[in-house]
Amino acid sequence: MMRRVTLACVVALAGMTSASLDAQRGKAPDKPLVIASQGSFFVGGESKAIPAPPAGQGRGGVPGGDVTVNQMYVQYQIPPNGARHTPVVMVHGCCLSSKTWETTPDGRMGWDEYFVRRDRPVYLADQVSRARSGFDATVISAVKAGSAPASQLPNIIFATHQIAWTVFRFGPVYGKTFPDGQFPIEAIDELYKQMIPDLNALLPNPNPTWTNMAALAVRLKGAILMGHSESGFFPEQAALIDPSGIRGMISIEMPCPADLTDAQIATLAKIPTLVMFGDHLGDVQGGPANWAMSYDSCEKYVQRIKAAKGDAEMMSLPKMGIKGNSHMLMQDRNNLQLADLILKWIDQHVEGKKGT
Amino acid sequence: MMRRVTLACVVALAGMTSASLDAQRGKAPDKPLVIASQGSFFVGGESKAIPAPPAGQGRGGVPGGDVTVNQMYVQYQIPPNGARHTPVVMVHGCCLSSKTWETTPDGRMGWDEYFVRRDRPVYLADQVSRARSGFDATVISAVKAGSAPASQLPNIIFATHQIAWTVFRFGPVYGKTFPDGQFPIEAIDELYKQMIPDLNALLPNPNPTWTNMAALAVRLKGAILMGHSESGFFPEQAALIDPSGIRGMISIEMPCPADLTDAQIATLAKIPTLVMFGDHLGDVQGGPANWAMSYDSCEKYVQRIKAAKGDAEMMSLPKMGIKGNSHMLMQDRNNLQLADLILKWIDQHVEGKKGT
Repeated sequence: MMRRVTLACVVALAGMTSASLDAQRGKAPDKPLVIASQGSFFVGGESKAIPAPPAGQGRGGVPGGDVTVNQMYVQYQIPPNGARHTPVVMVHGCCLSSKTWETTPDGRMGWDEYFVRRDRPVYLADQVSRARSGFDATVISAVKAGSAPASQLPNIIFATHQIAWTVFRFGPVYGKTFPDGQFPIEAIDELYKQMIPDLNALLPNPNPTWTNMAALAVRLKGAILMGHSESGFFPEQAALIDPSGIRGMISIEMPCPADLTDAQIATLAKIPTLVMFGDHLGDVQGGPANWAMSYDSCEKYVQRIKAAKGDAEMMSLPKMGIKGNSHMLMQDRNNLQLADLILKWIDQHVEGKKGT
Repeated sequence: MMRRVTLACVVALAGMTSASLDAQRGKAPDKPLVIASQGSFFVGGESKAIPAPPAGQGRGGVPGGDVTVNQMYVQYQIPPNGARHTPVVMVHGCCLSSKTWETTPDGRMGWDEYFVRRDRPVYLADQVSRARSGFDATVISAVKAGSAPASQLPNIIFATHQIAWTVFRFGPVYGKTFPDGQFPIEAIDELYKQMIPDLNALLPNPNPTWTNMAALAVRLKGAILMGHSESGFFPEQAALIDPSGIRGMISIEMPCPADLTDAQIATLAKIPTLVMFGDHLGDVQGGPANWAMSYDSCEKYVQRIKAAKGDAEMMSLPKMGIKGNSHMLMQDRNNLQLADLILKWIDQHVEGKKGT
């Protein structure tokens, strides 16, 4: 049976590399992945003294002492040609971990491996207070022991399946999809397994993840910071703490603040910025997120950066003819096509190459 | 200046491969790492309905709905010759994550990469309720919202620096080291960053990590399960749920139960078992762990397995002349020498090869 190939298809496919085509078709990659070095380490972290719990209570009989808090776990892979390119640091959003960037829910290649296969050193960071970075459990233990009131417990955010469906824009209401939706909805149960409790309410201000992202960029002698959703503006927050290591900022689907000072804008305008949004921003009903408003706030932000002579790009996928992308666009069926757009932006705006 | 090389040194070095020698010397590996495929996925997990919180309280205004709990996050790498060998599943201990098996605190190669470089498919699992596997936060939110008493909060275990020092056997008391200690104590702050709160008190019985480890072994069409400390006996617990996928069990430094039935022993005796313990078991003062008692309990367990005609080995490193290993022996300076011992055991006892 012949398949209908539309003009839009041909145009979309023409922009894709053979590697991305292979992965789009669900094939295992033909070529082995070659890694010059890989591993994991922590950025930041400090000692905190905790008092001994009341006799006979709490922490399995563990006495007082010191624990380490506010550290950020980072996992990395550097390809053989990695030194020719600027490292890319990827930071996940709310109620998620670095799993965001790995194998997609339906088993395709994630952005982490794809960027490495495109010669980029890739660093995945678990936000402070999430996943392998751990969290400061002392207040929970204090409430358990009766030495602090329940009101001091953190307001833990965990998205239900029902909330995720519309916040992540898989369809207009729970259980319904958009006809052109790019998310692999048949594998949604695998996305639900990625959704873990968000303990950011435990964090001090400024968020140690921002400080640690800035420090990581310095440690790497220059890095591109990428954030998504809850962490979408974290690259900019990191730059406001210390811009010296940050060579580029990629901000995916988040609200942008309207209250930045001109001095802050001047700092941010020195670093190339890409803001990316998917489709159906105004097409979901209810829920805590309003993506159309977020888009508008970021459009205003990009205009302010441009007015300060900064290099900032507002990339609306549907305006480029790429339709149906969800909030989890790094996991959508066309995820590697989107990765190619980002890689091209990096080449041109961070690494100074002319059009490819 | 010439270095004194003792006979014990020469004997120890003779058993090491050139790759392990390179890593012992702190060199970056000479050869790139070649990966046929890598990625991550979840095993297990089920939906749990949660009620809506009282109006105006809890969970950031999120209404009731369904969340996914009890899933286990697994990250893997398969080398080009991986199909020739049985996959190895590594599961970390209390207050830790899969970071246990990665880059050591002082920056040397961990067992994860070393096993891959020795042609083994490696699977790292974060225990259910820890790190990227997430946890069931509903009871904490219920206490925060006032709909459950504080006594229902989990007893969260987090080891202080002071406790870790003696439980992990870095020295006889906090701040003192053993003269022959193998742990890279100059990098202990990096180990403290790996120590994260343990929420296993939230788990149902049987522990879903056991069920998921058994299911993973089936999914891999045969696997060797390895556990450490809190998870040291998890391979056996998994086998008691479903032994069909489990080809070998490696249990590192834990207490062994004395109350197994003869039927349970008969099941376990069908699978080759290696139990490994380090040094200075009776040389630390105080603390919640008693490693000398743990050793004795496992020696009795191994004897029971042998009496049931099972293939079980009790490997005491100091009895083999390998001195000074801590509880975190996969991070000790001689970690790759110990990895070689395990690989040799796998070759001979699981994969049926004659002595190397």
